[in-house]
Amino acid sequence: MRITVTGEHDEITRRRIAGAAGDAYVAFAADPADGIELADAVVGHVPEPLLARAPRLRWVHSPAAGVDAVLSDGLLDSDVVLTSATGNGAIPLAEQAMLLVLMLDRDAPRWLRAQSERRWDRYVHGELAGRTIGLYGLGHAGLDLAAKAKAFHMRVLGVRRSPDRPAPGVDELFGQEDLGRFLAESDFVVVTAPLTAATRGRFGRSEFAAMRRTACFVCVSRGGIADDGALLDALRRGEIAGAGLDAHGVEPLPPDSPFWSLPNVIVTPHNGATTHETARRGLEILLDNVGRFTRGEPLRNVVDKAAGY
Amino acid sequence: MRITVTGEHDEITRRRIAGAAGDAYVAFAADPADGIELADAVVGHVPEPLLARAPRLRWVHSPAAGVDAVLSDGLLDSDVVLTSATGNGAIPLAEQAMLLVLMLDRDAPRWLRAQSERRWDRYVHGELAGRTIGLYGLGHAGLDLAAKAKAFHMRVLGVRRSPDRPAPGVDELFGQEDLGRFLAESDFVVVTAPLTAATRGRFGRSEFAAMRRTACFVCVSRGGIADDGALLDALRRGEIAGAGLDAHGVEPLPPDSPFWSLPNVIVTPHNGATTHETARRGLEILLDNVGRFTRGEPLRNVVDKAAGY
Repeated sequence: MRITVTGEHDEITRRRIAGAAGDAYVAFAADPADGIELADAVVGHVPEPLLARAPRLRWVHSPAAGVDAVLSDGLLDSDVVLTSATGNGAIPLAEQAMLLVLMLDRDAPRWLRAQSERRWDRYVHGELAGRTIGLYGLGHAGLDLAAKAKAFHMRVLGVRRSPDRPAPGVDELFGQEDLGRFLAESDFVVVTAPLTAATRGRFGRSEFAAMRRTACFVCVSRGGIADDGALLDALRRGEIAGAGLDAHGVEPLPPDSPFWSLPNVIVTPHNGATTHETARRGLEILLDNVGRFTRGEPLRNVVDKAAGY
Repeated sequence: MRITVTGEHDEITRRRIAGAAGDAYVAFAADPADGIELADAVVGHVPEPLLARAPRLRWVHSPAAGVDAVLSDGLLDSDVVLTSATGNGAIPLAEQAMLLVLMLDRDAPRWLRAQSERRWDRYVHGELAGRTIGLYGLGHAGLDLAAKAKAFHMRVLGVRRSPDRPAPGVDELFGQEDLGRFLAESDFVVVTAPLTAATRGRFGRSEFAAMRRTACFVCVSRGGIADDGALLDALRRGEIAGAGLDAHGVEPLPPDSPFWSLPNVIVTPHNGATTHETARRGLEILLDNVGRFTRGEPLRNVVDKAAGY
């Protein structure tokens, strides 16, 4: 049995992966094409043309939580099982969302500008208690954010595919068909959903128009769920009050992107979950799955390929 | 019965205060000295020399939560009852503390600098989950912050005068005599305590030296609890990693204060609780107490003058 592991890994990590594989052969490769004919599993992205050359391939593991970049049509149509690191960055992602919400509500950039000019610039700002946060997506990050928002004494609304599953910390669940009311009632709309066929472009002109003029839009999961042109127009026209964007439609965000300089936008560089702990949790999931695969046991974090996450 | 109300109040607020006073006469005055000889109560600060001219004075109400500025030695030694607005700003103060903690942990100023330069500056930062936050002071704000920190999956330590009273959300309570261990175990030390004879200068050289070199100091209640010289030295020498300061020893912070420009310090202008809701809650407390006073009922938020809060 051969498991090809792509990506950069230090010596200790390589030994741990090899150790988890037991008697199976682990090939560390810069290019997944190396030995793809013999690979039973690949950790990393397998470009679609390689699939036809990989008759033994039964498992692909995405080291990222979101699989939008690795889930090709070919992989979707195949019998190859796809797993992901989902959950590894959920907690720091929820931290980033709460940071962006607080920074927007209190206009923290204004304080930092005043600090750089040694100015005592005191003003009335908002408080989160009593306000409504709408979570678009209730996976690991969304549910953790819901609990945080409750500790901030907020009303928590949530949208997800299956509105009948339990969602602790969420005061009211909405189906996709109720998106308009969800948007109209939210002071902060936070996107934590994966990028899938169903969510791509889900926030367009009519969705931003349905938001309150005083509301802010925050995205910490994936760009492309918002239509960037529609978002830009909504921000410029004052249809919404501001945005906190960690995930962007094009990454890195190009230097000439208008988002950088809009006064009511906070841009962070898809950096919300970039912690040592996220890497550690991701590695634990990988090691667990490598062991399971070699022992023929059911894998963790199996992706519903049709759903896209 | 005469109640002197100082400070600026709009017409609606004046009517509400007068209404709460019933048959008692409410004098709105820019200067508490106006009619002080006849005043049974004063809302606002009564300068110490006025006390000798106020034979009827039985009650002073501080519109601020902290009474350090109004609690003179003369008022302390008198039989005049002092009440405060304590609790009015606790929730937004806890929000500010969590904002500063998150901004420090993730170096949010670095993101904003990069944004202003249209730079995609991605880096590894911390996450709060699993870290330890030490709360110096467990009043309204401290306890609300404890609950928030638990939602961030943090270990919560607390110091207060009476370590045997219950403190929901606090994992371990310390008495003042255990301050050293409290400081040594905390990744974030957050001061939410009032400024009193006991807390003034409580954080000096030995306290900052007892903190972890990787830890940050945050103060959202009152300046003066930290010795600013000792704090500056600790920051410059790298004895602590950073600070988030909303309350300062001298306010407004003078333009030539070194705190403005230290790279590991976030300065905000004593602005954490400056929300419309804080004003509204403070007014409700005032109205309640005006009514109680005129009816001869026990007042709310009576200050333990010896303790200083």
